[in-house]
Amino acid sequence: MKAGIIGSGSWATAMAKILTDNGKQINWWIRSEETIRYMQQRHHNKHYLTSVYFDTNLIQLSNDLAAVVAASDVLVLAVPSAFLEEVLLQLPTDALQGKKIINAIKGLVPGANQLINEYLEDIFSLPLDQYFTITGPCHAEEVANEKLSYLTFSGLEEDAAQQMADLFSNSYLQTIVNKDVIGVQLAAVLKNIYALGAGIAHGLDYGDNFLSVYITNCFREMQQFLETYSQHHTETLTEHNYNASAYLGDLLVTCYSLHSRNRTFGNMIGKGYSVKSAQLELNMIAEGYYASKCLKEMNEQVGAYMPVAQAVFSILWQHQNAAEAFLALEKGFI
Amino acid sequence: MKAGIIGSGSWATAMAKILTDNGKQINWWIRSEETIRYMQQRHHNKHYLTSVYFDTNLIQLSNDLAAVVAASDVLVLAVPSAFLEEVLLQLPTDALQGKKIINAIKGLVPGANQLINEYLEDIFSLPLDQYFTITGPCHAEEVANEKLSYLTFSGLEEDAAQQMADLFSNSYLQTIVNKDVIGVQLAAVLKNIYALGAGIAHGLDYGDNFLSVYITNCFREMQQFLETYSQHHTETLTEHNYNASAYLGDLLVTCYSLHSRNRTFGNMIGKGYSVKSAQLELNMIAEGYYASKCLKEMNEQVGAYMPVAQAVFSILWQHQNAAEAFLALEKGFI
Repeated sequence: MKAGIIGSGSWATAMAKILTDNGKQINWWIRSEETIRYMQQRHHNKHYLTSVYFDTNLIQLSNDLAAVVAASDVLVLAVPSAFLEEVLLQLPTDALQGKKIINAIKGLVPGANQLINEYLEDIFSLPLDQYFTITGPCHAEEVANEKLSYLTFSGLEEDAAQQMADLFSNSYLQTIVNKDVIGVQLAAVLKNIYALGAGIAHGLDYGDNFLSVYITNCFREMQQFLETYSQHHTETLTEHNYNASAYLGDLLVTCYSLHSRNRTFGNMIGKGYSVKSAQLELNMIAEGYYASKCLKEMNEQVGAYMPVAQAVFSILWQHQNAAEAFLALEKGFI
Repeated sequence: MKAGIIGSGSWATAMAKILTDNGKQINWWIRSEETIRYMQQRHHNKHYLTSVYFDTNLIQLSNDLAAVVAASDVLVLAVPSAFLEEVLLQLPTDALQGKKIINAIKGLVPGANQLINEYLEDIFSLPLDQYFTITGPCHAEEVANEKLSYLTFSGLEEDAAQQMADLFSNSYLQTIVNKDVIGVQLAAVLKNIYALGAGIAHGLDYGDNFLSVYITNCFREMQQFLETYSQHHTETLTEHNYNASAYLGDLLVTCYSLHSRNRTFGNMIGKGYSVKSAQLELNMIAEGYYASKCLKEMNEQVGAYMPVAQAVFSILWQHQNAAEAFLALEKGFI
C-alpha cells in the first residue's frame, strides 16, 4: 500500500515523520513550490516541526494533487478543515475511486456543517468503508520529539482500521482501533469548542479548581451529545467507550495544554478582546471558533442539551458578555 | 447547629474561612497553644493560608478536644489521616453520641485500611446516617483566594447532606449533594495514588500526550474499582455519576496541579530518588504513598483489575524499577 499525505502543516508533517520513520515510501502533496524546494535541499519543513529531519529518498514531493492522489492507495488528509474544499475541488469527482482515505482533520466542512466523510461521499462518492479517521490526544510537537503518544484509528470494520493503524505503529506511537468512526470525529470537534471555553474561563480569572469542574462537565456534555446524535443517526450506531484516549484523553490534552491555539484564543476573549482583535493579535482564528457555529447549527437537528457549547457560541458569535455567560453556566455544574 | 473544626492544616483553615465568612460561630480545635495564641493576636493561621484574615469574635479556639466536641453539634474532621487515631483516642468512646460528623480527610485509617466512617463506627459507634463527607476538587489555596470552587457533600440521606452543604454554600463556594458516601471516599483515595503516578510519569520524561492517556485510563480504573467494590459491599450500593466533580474533577485537579504534593513526590521517584531520599528532600511523604499500600491490601478482598494502582504500589513499596513498570502499563492503555 502506497501512502500519500495531503497538507504541509504541523500535523501533516508529523504524519510524514511517522510513516518515513517506519520505512514507508510516501507521496507528499505540498502546495508551495518553495516549501518543496526547501525540503529537498535542507530535509526539513521550513515552517512546521522544523527539528524533524526527513530522508527525502523516501518521499516523493509534489504540488500536483491529482498526481499524488493517482500514485497513492491510501491518502492521509491533513489540511485545515477551512481549506479542504478549496484543495479537493482541484480533483475530478472520480479521483478517489478505490482509494482509502485516512482523515487526520479535526473539524467539520464549514458552511455545509458536514463531517468529512459526508462531504467525501457527496462529492467523490466515497463509501464509508473506505474511510478512516485518526484522532488524538496528540500534539504534533511531541511526535517531533518522539514522546510516546497514542492515536486511535477508526473505521466501520475493525480489521481494515487495524491495517491503517499498522502503517503508523512504532516505538513512540501506540495505536488503538475502534469502530466509532462518526463519534470520534464529533468528539474531536467538540473538544476544540470546550478548549476555547477553557481559555475563556482562564481569561476570566477562574482558577484550577473551577477548570477541573468545567472540563468534567464538558465531558458529560460531550457524551450526552454523542448519545443523542446516535439516536438520530442509527445507521452509525456503535458502542462508545468514552473513557478512552480519543474522547476524554483528547479533551484533556486540548483543554490543559498551554500550546493549544483554541485555549490561547479563548484566553484573549475572556480578557475582553473582541474576536476581531484576538484574530489580528494572534494572526489566526482557532478551529473552535468555526466549530462552535457548525455545531450549533448541527445541534438544531439533534437537540442535545449543550449549555457549554451554547455559551461559547453566544460569546463568540452573538457578543454575549463572557463573564455573564459563565456566571449562568456555573450554576448547572456538578 | 454549632460547628466545630478539628485540625489546623491548610484544609482545616479553608473550612474555618468558609464557615466564618458565612457568619457562623465555630469552635476550632488546634493542638498547638502557640498557634492558638498567634491567631488570637494576629487573626491569621501562622503556618497555613497565611493570607486569610479571621474575625476571632466568631471563633472559639481551644486545644481541649473534648471541650470542642462537647460544644459542637457538627464536627468537621480535618487532620491528616495518619494522625486521626492519635487525635481521636483522646476522646471517650461516647463523645460522638448525637453528633454529626463531616469528614474532610482524604484517606484511609492506616494499618486498619478502614474508611473513616468504618473507624468511627468501630470506636465511637457512630451510625452511618450521622456521617457525611466533603470532597473536592478543591485546592485550599484557591479557597483562600475566593476563587470559585465546588464541594460535594455526601450522606446516606440527601436531605441531611443538603443541611451540611448549606452551612458552606456561598458566593465562591458552590455545593453539590449526593448519596455516594462510600464511593466518593474511595475515589479520593485513588486520585492521590494516580496523581503520585502522574508525577512518576513526568519524572520519567513522558509528555503531555501520554499524561492525558494515563489519566483517562486511571479514570477508567477508578470506575472499575468502585463498581467491583459495590458488588462486594451491597449495603452501600448507590448510583455513581462518575462524570461529576467529586470523581473526575478531583482526579484532574490533583493530577495536573503542580501544587499537588503527590505529584511532586512522584516526580522525584520518577527521576530516580528513593522513597527515603524523596521524603528527606521534601520533608514529607505524600498521602498517595500510604494510600497505595492500603488500597493494595483492600483490593485483595475486592479483586478489581488495577494495573496502574498496582504499578504505583510496586514502585513505591517493592523497589520495582519505575521505567519498567510504566513500560508494562503503556501496552494496556486505550
